[in-house]
Amino acid sequence: MASIADELAKKQKEISVSEFFERNRHILGFDSQVKSLIMGIKEAVDNSIDACEEADILPEITVMIERIEKDEFRVTVEDNGPGIVKKAIPNVFGRLLYGSRFHAVRQSRGQQGIGISATVMYGQITTGKPATVISKTGKEDVAWRMDIMVNTKKNLPDVLKEDPFIWDGKEHGTKITYHMNGRYVGGKQSVMEYLKQTAIVNPHSRIAFVDPDGKRTTFERATEKMPPATKEIKPHPSGLELGTLMNMSKETRNKTLGKFLQLDFSRISDRLAKEICEKADLSMNANPAKLNLEELKRLLAAIGAVKIMAPPTDCLSPIGVNLIKKGLRNVLDEVRPEFYAPPVTRDPKVHSGNPFLVEVGIVYGGGLPKDSPVQILRFANRVPLLYQQGACVVTKAIESTDWRRYGLEQRGGSGIPFGPAIILVHVASTKVPFTSEAKEAIANLPEIQSEIELALRICGRSLKTHLNKKETKSKTRVKFEIVQEILPLIALKSAKIVGKPVPKLSGSITKIMNVVWIDDSVSYEKKHHRVRVSIYNYTPQSQKFNLHMVIPPGSFDYKGLQFFPSEVRDDGKVSWELPKIASTERLDINFSLNGLNKEDYDENEIYASGINPVLIIGAEPLPGDWDVKGMQITESEEAPVQEEEDEEVDYDESKEALNDD
Amino acid sequence: MASIADELAKKQKEISVSEFFERNRHILGFDSQVKSLIMGIKEAVDNSIDACEEADILPEITVMIERIEKDEFRVTVEDNGPGIVKKAIPNVFGRLLYGSRFHAVRQSRGQQGIGISATVMYGQITTGKPATVISKTGKEDVAWRMDIMVNTKKNLPDVLKEDPFIWDGKEHGTKITYHMNGRYVGGKQSVMEYLKQTAIVNPHSRIAFVDPDGKRTTFERATEKMPPATKEIKPHPSGLELGTLMNMSKETRNKTLGKFLQLDFSRISDRLAKEICEKADLSMNANPAKLNLEELKRLLAAIGAVKIMAPPTDCLSPIGVNLIKKGLRNVLDEVRPEFYAPPVTRDPKVHSGNPFLVEVGIVYGGGLPKDSPVQILRFANRVPLLYQQGACVVTKAIESTDWRRYGLEQRGGSGIPFGPAIILVHVASTKVPFTSEAKEAIANLPEIQSEIELALRICGRSLKTHLNKKETKSKTRVKFEIVQEILPLIALKSAKIVGKPVPKLSGSITKIMNVVWIDDSVSYEKKHHRVRVSIYNYTPQSQKFNLHMVIPPGSFDYKGLQFFPSEVRDDGKVSWELPKIASTERLDINFSLNGLNKEDYDENEIYASGINPVLIIGAEPLPGDWDVKGMQITESEEAPVQEEEDEEVDYDESKEALNDD
Repeated sequence: MASIADELAKKQKEISVSEFFERNRHILGFDSQVKSLIMGIKEAVDNSIDACEEADILPEITVMIERIEKDEFRVTVEDNGPGIVKKAIPNVFGRLLYGSRFHAVRQSRGQQGIGISATVMYGQITTGKPATVISKTGKEDVAWRMDIMVNTKKNLPDVLKEDPFIWDGKEHGTKITYHMNGRYVGGKQSVMEYLKQTAIVNPHSRIAFVDPDGKRTTFERATEKMPPATKEIKPHPSGLELGTLMNMSKETRNKTLGKFLQLDFSRISDRLAKEICEKADLSMNANPAKLNLEELKRLLAAIGAVKIMAPPTDCLSPIGVNLIKKGLRNVLDEVRPEFYAPPVTRDPKVHSGNPFLVEVGIVYGGGLPKDSPVQILRFANRVPLLYQQGACVVTKAIESTDWRRYGLEQRGGSGIPFGPAIILVHVASTKVPFTSEAKEAIANLPEIQSEIELALRICGRSLKTHLNKKETKSKTRVKFEIVQEILPLIALKSAKIVGKPVPKLSGSITKIMNVVWIDDSVSYEKKHHRVRVSIYNYTPQSQKFNLHMVIPPGSFDYKGLQFFPSEVRDDGKVSWELPKIASTERLDINFSLNGLNKEDYDENEIYASGINPVLIIGAEPLPGDWDVKGMQITESEEAPVQEEEDEEVDYDESKEALNDD
Repeated sequence: MASIADELAKKQKEISVSEFFERNRHILGFDSQVKSLIMGIKEAVDNSIDACEEADILPEITVMIERIEKDEFRVTVEDNGPGIVKKAIPNVFGRLLYGSRFHAVRQSRGQQGIGISATVMYGQITTGKPATVISKTGKEDVAWRMDIMVNTKKNLPDVLKEDPFIWDGKEHGTKITYHMNGRYVGGKQSVMEYLKQTAIVNPHSRIAFVDPDGKRTTFERATEKMPPATKEIKPHPSGLELGTLMNMSKETRNKTLGKFLQLDFSRISDRLAKEICEKADLSMNANPAKLNLEELKRLLAAIGAVKIMAPPTDCLSPIGVNLIKKGLRNVLDEVRPEFYAPPVTRDPKVHSGNPFLVEVGIVYGGGLPKDSPVQILRFANRVPLLYQQGACVVTKAIESTDWRRYGLEQRGGSGIPFGPAIILVHVASTKVPFTSEAKEAIANLPEIQSEIELALRICGRSLKTHLNKKETKSKTRVKFEIVQEILPLIALKSAKIVGKPVPKLSGSITKIMNVVWIDDSVSYEKKHHRVRVSIYNYTPQSQKFNLHMVIPPGSFDYKGLQFFPSEVRDDGKVSWELPKIASTERLDINFSLNGLNKEDYDENEIYASGINPVLIIGAEPLPGDWDVKGMQITESEEAPVQEEEDEEVDYDESKEALNDD
């Protein structure tokens, strides 16, 4: 066998990472002509927004696609970012696995140092042409223009040409032009859709797009305010693995275990470091680099045994409740849905040292198609995910939720449910665990799946409440209609028989109905929202209770009011102490909201207190603890509403083993 | 901005490939404790079988899992392969992207040079312990034992210890032992299931497995014959891309374009090379290394414009019809399905220069669950795929086939169909385009999807034929039962009324039925298959026709025959010239099959000729061209049946754009 082993040994050789991806470019997402065109633009735009945010610049991005031949396109992406210094340009664009964001624990779009150089490589594979990069770092600096190719055998950049460049009127920024074989299409998975969704969840960006026919579309900036900058943090100790701890202890600059624990991790205080060292039976003064395997194992066990605070939230940048609503609205086009479940933003959790958080929104009904699977919108770190839905933990979490409990149709209680709904899920993390370098789907990590499921259930319950309310209301209405139709007939007949006048019936009707019926509407005219709430007392007694609504803070219009509220709170809660309403009587409340966009308010949230909840149709009972449970303040993008409710989910890996196929 | 650009430039750095995968180990499939244990074993076993096949050795593989602590396991995989020479051992096990199979155009399980070193890396990350490798290349050679870790910062092996080793009684082979955190489970996605499925489609392998409780299971070899060795070939010119052509033309040793075309590609003859050069307006004697971009583009266009033979099949190793049946039977356990659609092995096609072929098998009915989605079994290069079904082109192809046409339930005609069926799909290729380095799902390449869809439709049509036959038979039976019940009653009553004797009814019944009814059965007793075929003539005329069956070649038993066939062909076709069967009469044919395993024959295939096919229930009309159409010879593992039928599918990329989400 020695000769065969020798023979095989001769063939053993190193494979360069670019050579690997040259042959496996589908792993990078370049697996069809349609997709390749989108992928390349996505990589360039993600980089541009990341760079602008790092330099605290409002992004201005222009994307242009020109058709050169039937299949060949020239793509140009230009930004107003900080620019790239001359000596870094070749590596950034001409070398795979080279970048600035890989080693940082911080939320960013690019993390791998692969995307843009892979785009350059794919362009050269399909057209034989280099990419041209122009970059300028400041007013006084000269811009540089370089023609770059990836030397795939060595994974190093080949700079074919390099010139100083006069970039008229441009203070700073980067512009990349590459050629690529591709196919330009419209529809759900297209460059246009990717840019549109990107613009929605990055409203501080201005994105202009010139399509191959020369048609220009501009997604204007919706806000001049940068999203809060995400902070770089130290790794969180939750889910730390032995190998990582070993590496960190060997490489730390801190010479004592105490300092190492406090300074190399987030959320470990001096007190906690002491507690850990005690549990591990190690000295605070031990040299971390000299710990042996046994000691490191004890240390890891001790870290796992103490209670550590959740990671800080400022390393993450949620989309926020308002933009989630907006994102949902975008895909709805002209379809007016009947219900938006209040979006949920969960508290940050940790997967192997990396903080992450989950956001979910659901819309239901209206013109959405009833007889097809629900539509799923996925985002990761504010980047829309258009492909590989089937491989994504988001899909897995939706599939393993029993939607029959929340009013959607689902055969056997698993799988993608059917019904007129759209489910939006955003996962933000300092490290999104994508299933492949193409960053199309999020891997099925138990911690993430469980968080998504919890958020889905909270939204699901809102949906169910809505559907129940709708059903109760519709049943009551049917009863009401029957009673109103039949009772007068009986009365008429009876009166005729006994020869007496027809009796007044409202008393009897109210006895049979025995409800307080609340009807409401919102309309938008002349830049005002008009809200109307009508309260019908169909009970035999007079009723006196309080009514509460939630409106966007600061929008309540006191002008022209006929019936003043008893309280208008800063957080948007408005309350009325209603006067006594006699049996069979009706009371109307009308008011306006000022200074909102049409889409900022489209459904009233009405609560009642001081009355037996079973009597009320059309309002929810006011939750006991107003601020914590049940109510959602719908205008709080910076400090998204945290659902406090935490169903404990006993994560069971055997379930994973059964489900993941 | 210059200062920010400088700041960012300081953070720019190279990321080593092992560092990348250390942080992205879920991309390698190490994303849960259950899966990690399976992944590591899969990488080791795949390597062992590959090495044995390359050295023409019948594989003997032992897998042992020992529990060390609650979550920590020690895994040992030992083979009898050719061994690895001493100097290659560290790189093979301690360095990512290093291997012998990446650069070869040839079907093998390992292709990336990542799997086994990733396993070593994951083991050390979770337990801090090195892997131990022992390898011996020949009787006279000494074995070497090494403790190896991956230096992730540099992507280089660290050899902690290295000793010569006395390997008692072992002539050659490799044994790897590593520690890993994991979780051991049973079920559909488990080490046991992976090994079982591997054994089934690699029947030349003997695989022993010792589980953490010390229980030993051995999957014995089912054949002593190695599968035909797959040949390494040159790239096929179909789907060649410009960049690849550029690289090849620069690196070729051939100094003339003519030689370059003939020797660096498969299926280009001298004549074809001339044709290509003429079309491209290039000289056969041009130096390929000196062609410019324009000339290369013309060359590529010319290659695309000539007709090139399909790639040779001997670089691929299909599973074959028999093993597909066996693989299906395995998952059925005690469930006896009513129907096996004859498996289909398609002719090889090409995706970007790489030959591939698709095989499909379907079973239906019996005890399979009726009210759940069909079960999907996926294989790639004879390796079972247990995870990421949702991301796989196999699933995509199944979902985009309209199964309602083939008798399965499917809402809206797309999505995974429901019904009592299992669909098995195997993709074999010199390069399987996996969606990620974990090799769990095959990327959605249009060429592959279209081949799978064609194969599915052929199998689907067999299924539909079966279901139609079943329905016709059952309808006829109902009619028959009604006629047999009612006619005698009418006859009795009429006879009574007119005072005459009850008439004989069989004539009338046959007039109403007007069918030749064929009933058949197979049983297995005392190592023989007993076949019974009964032919009832329920037509008013006497009938004379020929009956044909397909049996495994060589199994027909002439002993004890009452009614001799007119012909028993080598390919398994058996024909009878039936005597005239009078109206209302019945004829029985009984025979036995010898030397088969129980599962080798379980359903009769019956054809009739020389009679109007509409008269026959229970047999198919004999196809006009016996050898080509319709009939499947079920014993031909080496030369699998090629379905000649090729529905031309106009592949439409817009469909891809719509479907891939």
